[in-house]
Amino acid sequence: MIHLSLIGIGTGNPKHLTLEAVEAVRAQDLILIPNKGAGKDDLAGLRQQICAELLTGAPHAPRIIEFDLPVRDPSTADYRQRVDDWHDAIAEVWQAALAAHLPEGGSVGFLVWGDPSLYDSTMRIAERLRARIPMQMRVIPGITSIQALTAAHGVPLNSIGAPVQITTGRRLRSEGWPAGCDTLVIMLDGECSFQSLPAPEGVTIHWSAYAGMDNEINIAGVLSEVQAEILDTRARARQDHGWIMDIYLLQRQG
Amino acid sequence: MIHLSLIGIGTGNPKHLTLEAVEAVRAQDLILIPNKGAGKDDLAGLRQQICAELLTGAPHAPRIIEFDLPVRDPSTADYRQRVDDWHDAIAEVWQAALAAHLPEGGSVGFLVWGDPSLYDSTMRIAERLRARIPMQMRVIPGITSIQALTAAHGVPLNSIGAPVQITTGRRLRSEGWPAGCDTLVIMLDGECSFQSLPAPEGVTIHWSAYAGMDNEINIAGVLSEVQAEILDTRARARQDHGWIMDIYLLQRQG
Repeated sequence: MIHLSLIGIGTGNPKHLTLEAVEAVRAQDLILIPNKGAGKDDLAGLRQQICAELLTGAPHAPRIIEFDLPVRDPSTADYRQRVDDWHDAIAEVWQAALAAHLPEGGSVGFLVWGDPSLYDSTMRIAERLRARIPMQMRVIPGITSIQALTAAHGVPLNSIGAPVQITTGRRLRSEGWPAGCDTLVIMLDGECSFQSLPAPEGVTIHWSAYAGMDNEINIAGVLSEVQAEILDTRARARQDHGWIMDIYLLQRQG
Repeated sequence: MIHLSLIGIGTGNPKHLTLEAVEAVRAQDLILIPNKGAGKDDLAGLRQQICAELLTGAPHAPRIIEFDLPVRDPSTADYRQRVDDWHDAIAEVWQAALAAHLPEGGSVGFLVWGDPSLYDSTMRIAERLRARIPMQMRVIPGITSIQALTAAHGVPLNSIGAPVQITTGRRLRSEGWPAGCDTLVIMLDGECSFQSLPAPEGVTIHWSAYAGMDNEINIAGVLSEVQAEILDTRARARQDHGWIMDIYLLQRQG
């Protein structure tokens, strides 16, 4: 039997880890860390650093193994099919790693950026693994980039009693501002999709890159006034670091 | 100068605290804990318990002071006005407590259930305080009941690339299922507002009470099949504990 723990680690600030996450990391037999390849981002390095900090002096230390993530097949035209195939391929890699490193069974942990429930595929890959081997899954919640964003700016997420929609850059571009909701959180946006809004007047933005990390950048204001600054800052930060992770809150007058 | 820290503590599991929150609690001169009155809920007691656990053996211990929360004036008919007046009254109580216990200035922390950004008034009260006294505010993110809910059930919050709307029981009753979004998180719902949905067929629910706590209760399934069980379980749990805090995820086929 494999005991799988998906451990939310927050957004790169090692102090985002909860006491529950710290305990869970230390209790594993094995920690598997996906390696997306040099230069892609610093996430494998950050996970290694978090493990090193938590495990220094700990009475029991899990083995830490990096594995290569398969890449999505660009020849598969359908987006959902491409993602499904990719998740299948990752589940196979997990299974091979577990066969190699935990042949008798045991506990394995994955350090998940943010929280395992939010725009993350780890839980879906785990479900695929469950179909292949005897497995129990535990999810340990973590600080999401949404909370890192609102904490960085010191602003509430919602207006009093009002709804909030969490959505993607792709949806904002293709469908515009959703009806009936004046507060949006935009995630997974590689294209600064706020530029697609037809009437940015009266819309405010709170934008953060690397929210929660040492190199956090925050810009807030009326969208039409700060839009150019965000585009410029984002492009430079991405070039300087080789990668970027950003998120923003949009609000319009109801 | 007052240095105010709003410290997200998660949803009642002391292990939800992040390392950042632990450090912040220990670093304060003063912790203010609202006392809503005996029997209302266990939250003041839980905050006291969290402080006691964190501060045992700590080299520096903040003073911990409970204060009585003012009550909302039911004679004010308008909801927003009633809430605004109440926040003003709380800011006055905070100011009096700070004048009594930190007359020379210093650091004060509030332990905020969940995360300070989500359906919580502490940040709005702090903004009122800022208008009255010199103050700096810091927000420390915490695990929300949304993450406690999805972790308890081991389910993702979103479908792949799809949006999620966070809204209230009141809105679900008055406006029905929001257009363009097949996944909803319902909070602040004292009335099991899922009962108001006209066609619960094809809708699934993941419901949790006391999510993250020892007495956590989880029910999930097709809404029409588990609705009665949730109503019954919720009523009994509320009676047994004297209070209840619950949250749920609704999903319909897109």
